[in-house]
Amino acid sequence: MSTLNLETAARLIAAGQEAARDIGVAMNIAIVDPGGYLVAFCRMDGAWLGSTDVALRKAKTSALFPLPSSALGELSQPGGPIYGVEATNGGLVSFGGGLPIAAADGTVLGAIGVSGGMVEQDVAVAEAACKAL
Amino acid sequence: MSTLNLETAARLIAAGQEAARDIGVAMNIAIVDPGGYLVAFCRMDGAWLGSTDVALRKAKTSALFPLPSSALGELSQPGGPIYGVEATNGGLVSFGGGLPIAAADGTVLGAIGVSGGMVEQDVAVAEAACKAL
Amino acid sequence: MSTLNLETAARLIAAGQEAARDIGVAMNIAIVDPGGYLVAFCRMDGAWLGSTDVALRKAKTSALFPLPSSALGELSQPGGPIYGVEATNGGLVSFGGGLPIAAADGTVLGAIGVSGGMVEQDVAVAEAACKAL
Amino acid sequence: MSTLNLETAARLIAAGQEAARDIGVAMNIAIVDPGGYLVAFCRMDGAWLGSTDVALRKAKTSALFPLPSSALGELSQPGGPIYGVEATNGGLVSFGGGLPIAAADGTVLGAIGVSGGMVEQDVAVAEAACKAL
Repeated sequence: MSTLNLETAARLIAAGQEAARDIGVAMNIAIVDPGGYLVAFCRMDGAWLGSTDVALRKAKTSALFPLPSSALGELSQPGGPIYGVEATNGGLVSFGGGLPIAAADGTVLGAIGVSGGMVEQDVAVAEAACKAL
Repeated sequence: MSTLNLETAARLIAAGQEAARDIGVAMNIAIVDPGGYLVAFCRMDGAWLGSTDVALRKAKTSALFPLPSSALGELSQPGGPIYGVEATNGGLVSFGGGLPIAAADGTVLGAIGVSGGMVEQDVAVAEAACKAL
Repeated sequence: MSTLNLETAARLIAAGQEAARDIGVAMNIAIVDPGGYLVAFCRMDGAWLGSTDVALRKAKTSALFPLPSSALGELSQPGGPIYGVEATNGGLVSFGGGLPIAAADGTVLGAIGVSGGMVEQDVAVAEAACKAL
Repeated sequence: MSTLNLETAARLIAAGQEAARDIGVAMNIAIVDPGGYLVAFCRMDGAWLGSTDVALRKAKTSALFPLPSSALGELSQPGGPIYGVEATNGGLVSFGGGLPIAAADGTVLGAIGVSGGMVEQDVAVAEAACKAL
């Protein structure tokens, strides 16, 4: 298996939604395959419209560069080694909320992107979702 | 209520998946709000990658022009009154598989886009999904 | 193995170049993975500039919809069932010259796109390249 | 001669691959002509998918502005004279790894873009490749 299936993606999204409800924030949650193509998505009622695209791009970012999206942000600040990398690949997001999803052996199965709250909240929901893997 | 909520979107997607399994075709199913913004999405295991984007655009088409996407296609043929309309709004799809979702009083709540099989199959799955409204 | 490696891609490109030289036409040859991402590419000296993008899009088309690109074109003509599909997925090409590359068991490993000559020449070069698999 | 030919491009890519293997990093290497159009490309096995586009854009950047891509980055920082230049020309990359390729008399023949490792590694591989000119 080199890509997570829909059942797994739905389980992660359900876990993410539960974590989002626990903190009382409406989130957008996207799951993509290793090529960044969408597998499953939900926008919780009341989530900001603009966060939809942010969630999709966070997931894509962590699929194409299998790292937490925030790791790119540490390197892409003004004066940093990859300043401006967000302008590649059709538009990336380099703040937190994107996480690669990997099998036990390290194989990248896809990525998750969460957006809707404060960045720390987005990260917490993404991490909670991944625990359902 | 002017937008379908996530619970409704999920119910439509579940009904669409069931209809897709009944005919043995892996489908992409997208639900968008009246502004064409994604609410929920699933790619069934084995669906063609290229159909992901087609499903999203069918849904967007039927949200922005609240008609079956095929209705645009009848008018957008060479020599037709809206020839080339597909190039607007960032890219539309004018063949079947997109349907507006409306309340009993006719208010548009969003739209569904289905892609993965023959066009008639896509349309059948979209119609089956909408019956779950 | 679910994606062709660079060695295989280079072998296909070399075979394609040889076939192109045999018919005396300068070709662009692109090899992509199953997600449509570029693996290897060459533009033979003198090939038309505009054919570069055409070759890349033919390969992407046959990766995202694992069919000869011409198969889409049969269905996407005015009045056809998927008229206008070229406007999806960031721009597809639905005439001949794109072919999926599959393993013996049918697994899609990627796709090739060839452009530079008459369409029949493009198709012939793509087919010759794939024989080197 | 105003453009490097495919034979030269292939020689540069081979030299780049050898340098990449020496440091044990899978690289994407792109060679473009003076107009930024692709001449040859390879993605070494295991290179990050997202680096594909970065390599292509680095090469394009150093073709359209015949400078090391990092030279633009020095000027494009916040407060700098060309802040935001990355958003032009369909998307540029202003960190290291792009280099113009020039003849002995200074004529620009094209450019190379390398991406896959740390920026210094990308630059080292690009420089090693250009020595094969």
